[in-house]
Amino acid sequence: MIIIGELINTSREEVEPAVKDRDKEFIQELAKKQEEAGVDYVDVNCGTLIREEPEALEWLVETVQEAVDVPLCIDSPDPKAIKQGLEAHEGKALVNSITAEDERYDEVLPLIKEYDANIVALVMNDNGMPDDATDRIEVATELVDNLLEDGIPAEDIFVDPIIQPIGTDSEMGEHILNAVEEISSKYEDIHITCGLSNISHGLPQRQLLNQAYLVLAMSRGMDSAILDPLDEKIMSLAQASDTLLGKDQYCSDYIKASKSGDLTV
Amino acid sequence: MIIIGELINTSREEVEPAVKDRDKEFIQELAKKQEEAGVDYVDVNCGTLIREEPEALEWLVETVQEAVDVPLCIDSPDPKAIKQGLEAHEGKALVNSITAEDERYDEVLPLIKEYDANIVALVMNDNGMPDDATDRIEVATELVDNLLEDGIPAEDIFVDPIIQPIGTDSEMGEHILNAVEEISSKYEDIHITCGLSNISHGLPQRQLLNQAYLVLAMSRGMDSAILDPLDEKIMSLAQASDTLLGKDQYCSDYIKASKSGDLTV
Repeated sequence: MIIIGELINTSREEVEPAVKDRDKEFIQELAKKQEEAGVDYVDVNCGTLIREEPEALEWLVETVQEAVDVPLCIDSPDPKAIKQGLEAHEGKALVNSITAEDERYDEVLPLIKEYDANIVALVMNDNGMPDDATDRIEVATELVDNLLEDGIPAEDIFVDPIIQPIGTDSEMGEHILNAVEEISSKYEDIHITCGLSNISHGLPQRQLLNQAYLVLAMSRGMDSAILDPLDEKIMSLAQASDTLLGKDQYCSDYIKASKSGDLTV
Repeated sequence: MIIIGELINTSREEVEPAVKDRDKEFIQELAKKQEEAGVDYVDVNCGTLIREEPEALEWLVETVQEAVDVPLCIDSPDPKAIKQGLEAHEGKALVNSITAEDERYDEVLPLIKEYDANIVALVMNDNGMPDDATDRIEVATELVDNLLEDGIPAEDIFVDPIIQPIGTDSEMGEHILNAVEEISSKYEDIHITCGLSNISHGLPQRQLLNQAYLVLAMSRGMDSAILDPLDEKIMSLAQASDTLLGKDQYCSDYIKASKSGDLTV
């Protein structure tokens, strides 16, 4: 499972002032905690700071890379901010995100190629957000085919089927799982990721729903997620699921994690 | 999710002497705890008491039904014991199990019909235990087709794909999930159940693997399991998964369970 730690995001109450004040210690601490929890990427998002986003993102990239060894997920809808973040980043970043919207596609694609970055491909186009599984599969197909044709390697593409809340549509969970299954079987080498916690928006005990949905989606072919890696239970369930899905020969990763005290029942 | 509580089983150290000594209070307490935890069936199994199994099973059925309102799962490979258990049972029981072995099929089928019981159909035949997904699908097809032809209603059939430990074969988890997916899409109205904890046999922190595997299997169409209902986390994940799989309109069961304090994050 490729885990993207979501905690450095200015939409979180305690993070916005830390970024505004350039509180290096706070941000680096939050990055290190996520690295210790086992993330593969640390996400950096300062989308709430609209005017100063590119500079803030550059500062975040430099500040976080000073503290951790894992690469970053540069998370912004704004090509200018993405460019400034990528310019500051060392190593192969993940960019979140490109879409099938004409303008955004044309602006983000050259950045991905210039900086040889991995890319989150959000399944939306100029018609807006997807509704059911069919919409998601159609837009994913359009977007992945275009990216492949434009020279992006399959293994650099992380399709995001756009998780919407189960609380507003009881069928939403199944729509997305069906899309994940179809997309992952259609394109063998791509990854599928998601902003997991959207599923539980508006409902009580959100972590429980997030945990269950992660495992449900892994069963259908999802192999990455943007989530809170400090939830020890979700990280444990992700490890257990990888083992149970045949991705852990002789269960050796599981046994090692258990011996190290990294797993929570 | 149809939950079958597994705790009244003489293979458990504290249960065997209680059954041997006909310790009504101990057994009834264990039954009530499982009913309170929300099981749909209480399993009764005294297979370790070979010679006295039929009498012990009859006593268990009477003793447990005195204490709880949910029906029982009469769990024995021995048709004599099953008959004695069914004779004592009030209401529609679940019998665990019939197989595609010629002799066992012919002996158990008439009991199911006579007592109008639900039946767990274990996917094994005279060639022994199944190996991969293909074996499981073949034997399940043979067994379900025969049961349907012999007049058992689809909704009374609980196919058990036979869970074997992931610790001895890293591919086993996927074999079973693929079989569950195929069988559940082939026969719409049947149920699929399993002896869940077999998956984690021999590994550390077994509950974690059991929890993850339950959710993985639910994602592929499993709608029942024999498990430890006193594991609050597994019961919570089962409720969350039902909600996320579209089986809980407006998430009302989930919200109600959360308000009642029944869910563990």
